Amino acid sequence: MLSATDNETITRTGPGTHVGELFRRFWLPALLPSELPHTDSDPLRIRLLGEDLVAFRDTDGHVGVIQNNCPHRGASLFFGRNEEAGIRCVYHGWKFDVSGQCVDMPNEPAESDFRSKVRATAYPTREWAGVVWVYMGPPGLEGDLPRFEWTGVPPENRYIGKYVVDANWLQVIEGSIDTAHTAFLHRGPSTLEHKTAPRPMTDFSRDIPPHFSATETEYGVQVIARRDLPDHKTYWRITQVFLPSYSMIPADPNGNASLVATVPIDDVTCYSWKWTWHPRQAWTDEQVADMAGGSRRRIGGITYPELVPGTLRTAANAANDYRINRDWQRTLNFTGIAGQSEQDLAVQESMGPICNRTVEHLGSTDLGIIATRRRVLKAARDLQTGVEPPAARGGELYHLRSAAVTIDSQASLEDDPSVLAAMTAQA
Amino acid sequence: MLSATDNETITRTGPGTHVGELFRRFWLPALLPSELPHTDSDPLRIRLLGEDLVAFRDTDGHVGVIQNNCPHRGASLFFGRNEEAGIRCVYHGWKFDVSGQCVDMPNEPAESDFRSKVRATAYPTREWAGVVWVYMGPPGLEGDLPRFEWTGVPPENRYIGKYVVDANWLQVIEGSIDTAHTAFLHRGPSTLEHKTAPRPMTDFSRDIPPHFSATETEYGVQVIARRDLPDHKTYWRITQVFLPSYSMIPADPNGNASLVATVPIDDVTCYSWKWTWHPRQAWTDEQVADMAGGSRRRIGGITYPELVPGTLRTAANAANDYRINRDWQRTLNFTGIAGQSEQDLAVQESMGPICNRTVEHLGSTDLGIIATRRRVLKAARDLQTGVEPPAARGGELYHLRSAAVTIDSQASLEDDPSVLAAMTAQA
Amino acid sequence: MLSATDNETITRTGPGTHVGELFRRFWLPALLPSELPHTDSDPLRIRLLGEDLVAFRDTDGHVGVIQNNCPHRGASLFFGRNEEAGIRCVYHGWKFDVSGQCVDMPNEPAESDFRSKVRATAYPTREWAGVVWVYMGPPGLEGDLPRFEWTGVPPENRYIGKYVVDANWLQVIEGSIDTAHTAFLHRGPSTLEHKTAPRPMTDFSRDIPPHFSATETEYGVQVIARRDLPDHKTYWRITQVFLPSYSMIPADPNGNASLVATVPIDDVTCYSWKWTWHPRQAWTDEQVADMAGGSRRRIGGITYPELVPGTLRTAANAANDYRINRDWQRTLNFTGIAGQSEQDLAVQESMGPICNRTVEHLGSTDLGIIATRRRVLKAARDLQTGVEPPAARGGELYHLRSAAVTIDSQASLEDDPSVLAAMTAQA
Repeated sequence: MLSATDNETITRTGPGTHVGELFRRFWLPALLPSELPHTDSDPLRIRLLGEDLVAFRDTDGHVGVIQNNCPHRGASLFFGRNEEAGIRCVYHGWKFDVSGQCVDMPNEPAESDFRSKVRATAYPTREWAGVVWVYMGPPGLEGDLPRFEWTGVPPENRYIGKYVVDANWLQVIEGSIDTAHTAFLHRGPSTLEHKTAPRPMTDFSRDIPPHFSATETEYGVQVIARRDLPDHKTYWRITQVFLPSYSMIPADPNGNASLVATVPIDDVTCYSWKWTWHPRQAWTDEQVADMAGGSRRRIGGITYPELVPGTLRTAANAANDYRINRDWQRTLNFTGIAGQSEQDLAVQESMGPICNRTVEHLGSTDLGIIATRRRVLKAARDLQTGVEPPAARGGELYHLRSAAVTIDSQASLEDDPSVLAAMTAQA
Repeated sequence: MLSATDNETITRTGPGTHVGELFRRFWLPALLPSELPHTDSDPLRIRLLGEDLVAFRDTDGHVGVIQNNCPHRGASLFFGRNEEAGIRCVYHGWKFDVSGQCVDMPNEPAESDFRSKVRATAYPTREWAGVVWVYMGPPGLEGDLPRFEWTGVPPENRYIGKYVVDANWLQVIEGSIDTAHTAFLHRGPSTLEHKTAPRPMTDFSRDIPPHFSATETEYGVQVIARRDLPDHKTYWRITQVFLPSYSMIPADPNGNASLVATVPIDDVTCYSWKWTWHPRQAWTDEQVADMAGGSRRRIGGITYPELVPGTLRTAANAANDYRINRDWQRTLNFTGIAGQSEQDLAVQESMGPICNRTVEHLGSTDLGIIATRRRVLKAARDLQTGVEPPAARGGELYHLRSAAVTIDSQASLEDDPSVLAAMTAQA
Repeated sequence: MLSATDNETITRTGPGTHVGELFRRFWLPALLPSELPHTDSDPLRIRLLGEDLVAFRDTDGHVGVIQNNCPHRGASLFFGRNEEAGIRCVYHGWKFDVSGQCVDMPNEPAESDFRSKVRATAYPTREWAGVVWVYMGPPGLEGDLPRFEWTGVPPENRYIGKYVVDANWLQVIEGSIDTAHTAFLHRGPSTLEHKTAPRPMTDFSRDIPPHFSATETEYGVQVIARRDLPDHKTYWRITQVFLPSYSMIPADPNGNASLVATVPIDDVTCYSWKWTWHPRQAWTDEQVADMAGGSRRRIGGITYPELVPGTLRTAANAANDYRINRDWQRTLNFTGIAGQSEQDLAVQESMGPICNRTVEHLGSTDLGIIATRRRVLKAARDLQTGVEPPAARGGELYHLRSAAVTIDSQASLEDDPSVLAAMTAQA
């Protein structure tokens, strides 16, 4: 449960907001390179942290992210001409390079040309590891890009997806932090190919509820789930929340790992980013087809939803109640909804555009969420008092793995070598 | 004409509003039983008095009406599993019975289970006389259900319909109170099957405008319309407005009676409820088909509109200008719109979502409306000073008929036995 | 650049606003006569300066423009019966003539009839020169209708069009004042019938940027563009902005002249009016077909857009990105959009519903715009201090031509007889 004030603070990310300023200290995943497929390709409208922007890849291949409205009189640069190393407004021909500098002002007589004095808001970008990153904060405070394990693997070893969720960023990332929901929301076959559920749907007796603890770290929050097993063994699950909005879970038994992030489009919409990778193996064509087609097969613990072709919108959505099938819900899986991503969408969007956290009833499995909210609010408050977030330096701080290990109940989690090994990034 | 303040007061019905509190003292018609057709049938989203709710019929047949968002973290219970005498949130498996009590919390370790401390807002319901009633007020203040005549007739003697109107509740019920509009809005054939109008459309000379009076009563308002006839006879029409929002007119010559109500969905949308019945006769199959199909034949003085199949929305609506046909309007009936219900919709919705009553010009035929507004505002103000509305006790207070009688002009309306007989409910 | 306050002042035109009051001092073009094709034809809903109105042509051919909601209880008069020299509300039969006077109140008994006390807001209209004009200001302050040259030519010599633009009135008229954009936005073939652009699209070297000056006049603003030519010649272009929102450019070499106006529907939508005419020649059938069909051929320097049949909406619009074709933009014309009107729409609407002028960077070619804003704000402020706008007297003040003349550089613009001749209206 949050106070109304804290809920407002943590969910608002527009210019000038406290958490918005925090987001603006980090390199954010903004675009897939394929969205700007070649030099001088069509400009793209995007919105990030509530700001309307136009993205374009210039003649040299550099990606520009620039204010939507031309600084001259406000016509949208989306209709602009992307040519000769800049984007040119079609209204009067003013042209801007990727740095936002006005480089041509052809409607002005030579003697009164004032192009050197005109700059469009433009944010630096980096194209790296299959993602176009953008930094929307004060110049000079950019840190390193986050060296997640997937950034170091060959391109053929990773898959990256992105889609729009109609909800505030926080409730979407909270769904990823809270892995306790898996035993419920994702119970039963997800592809709806089965004919019957594998076991009584509401027999929860064989589940061992985990005991959670969470610790604040420099990069964000470390969440630990402990399950006491027979024979003096303990099963530990160590997961991470990275500032500003990443969540990682342990790799699956095949070694497939995954990471998710939510990036605010505005305060009621966000991008859900997902990465799956293997440190040493390339994906097969079949696996790529599964992920791209939204086959709902779990790889690295996650799935990609089916998208409306040519869009970043999911085919299952609020307008069609996520294609819920009540008969399937009675006989086959917990929700009657096909697909883990779609199941997540259904609950996350159904909380409302901005979840009212003043009326929650949190339990012990929500400990990771509580710690994350506290961590974000603390970092935002620190920033207001002039303390820059250490996590914004990025780089090696993000070079970490989640782990799932079974060790002797007597052993110390901190010192056990198998734990340390499991948490070391492999690429 | 109302002051801006009074218009605001009387039209707002959300939690904490004065008239909203008044509505919450009454059992309100909420659902048709057929909307929750069998035990453990699909949950239903509804909104009443501005509150988002989920309705479900549990394994024992009881109807639950419960807050839409799960008390845990806010996922919609609409996606929930309706099973084993309760509705279970699909996010983490929390389960609630029809009373709102949390009865299962399977994601929580046994030692920290706090289900007994968690209650969802849930409103008591009664399934009675072909209607699911809901009480949204303070526990313990529920009165009896209103014993309207139709509640006492065999099911086959009554017909019940319900549809959505895109307007504030008050302007919709005002249309029913103001029967003077019938001579205009509903003039001419309604089914548009005729080829010509039966008489010049704007020859109003044969109409005798009634003289209205209204008296406040315990149940609401009694409206009396007097028409002086030749030969020392007087035609009296006695109609009732029952709190919070019912309106009754006299039975038609065949003995078919009717009642209408408007129940706020929110402040710009309401349900229009209609009941037609005969105290001693079952409807024929043809009559039921007429009403269900929106044939626009008047029974008991009212009609049911044609609905978009599978919805509670009318086929004629603002988007299609209620299917107005200007040629018909010139030659056939007063509006060019087919159907009395559709004609009512056209004028009621066209007043705007919330009618601006500060610029009205009311006349003598609006006396019933004036008295009703005063009555509602008085009851709402009384409630704010701690005086509960006597009408909320329901029961016999609502066991009354509207009457249309012709008696000697000399006779006293209060004492005439034929009037008393006409106003006595017959079932 | 405007202050936030000035931008708010100049863009708001509803009742009680300063610029709204200014607009209400002028006869405004409101309807094409063909929108009310014959006596007692169907009523029409319109919105002007933020006011919802119903227009109708009565039995005598007079056009009434009256408040949308019936003064009685607020039902829309759009559903009314247009008959016997008035519009009759279908709810209770109240009838209003074109002056707004209630002339029948058939629901009221004779002794309490109060029709003489009820007036609907109604605005005087004039049907003149192919336009229905409306005056929405204080009675008695109406001036003459503006005697533009086109009002004096035979009907077959003029063409009049009107369509809806989804943007504030000011940014639309600013587009017409700012003729410097033509060299960019409208560069290249507009009909997209050509296969290649006639010259390199971004070779602006052959354009001679004009030098602008602007002077305030009684009717509004006179904008002068000077281009110094070889051989001691100077090319002058004299254009006018007439209050409240007209803009005129010089006739084309064939003698075809044009005028445009924007009339606020509300603050985020306006009508774009366009007139093309020839003082001495009738249009050919082919020319009329071109204009009516939106052929995109320029006549008198302007074009008419293609409309969605049966509506005042353009076929190219924000929802389809004005049918931009990026390949055409690369090879054929500056925008990749077909049609000068559509190109204007794209930039004007893309500024947002109300352009944020606090972040503009105006240059020397924006001088006419700057002068116009100042002129409008001054007239609005004067009016607040009781000074009526002289331009509102209309008539001969508007009997003027724009001019494009080449004269000796030594000659005085004011005194040159060819200039005076060019600026004299010819009809």
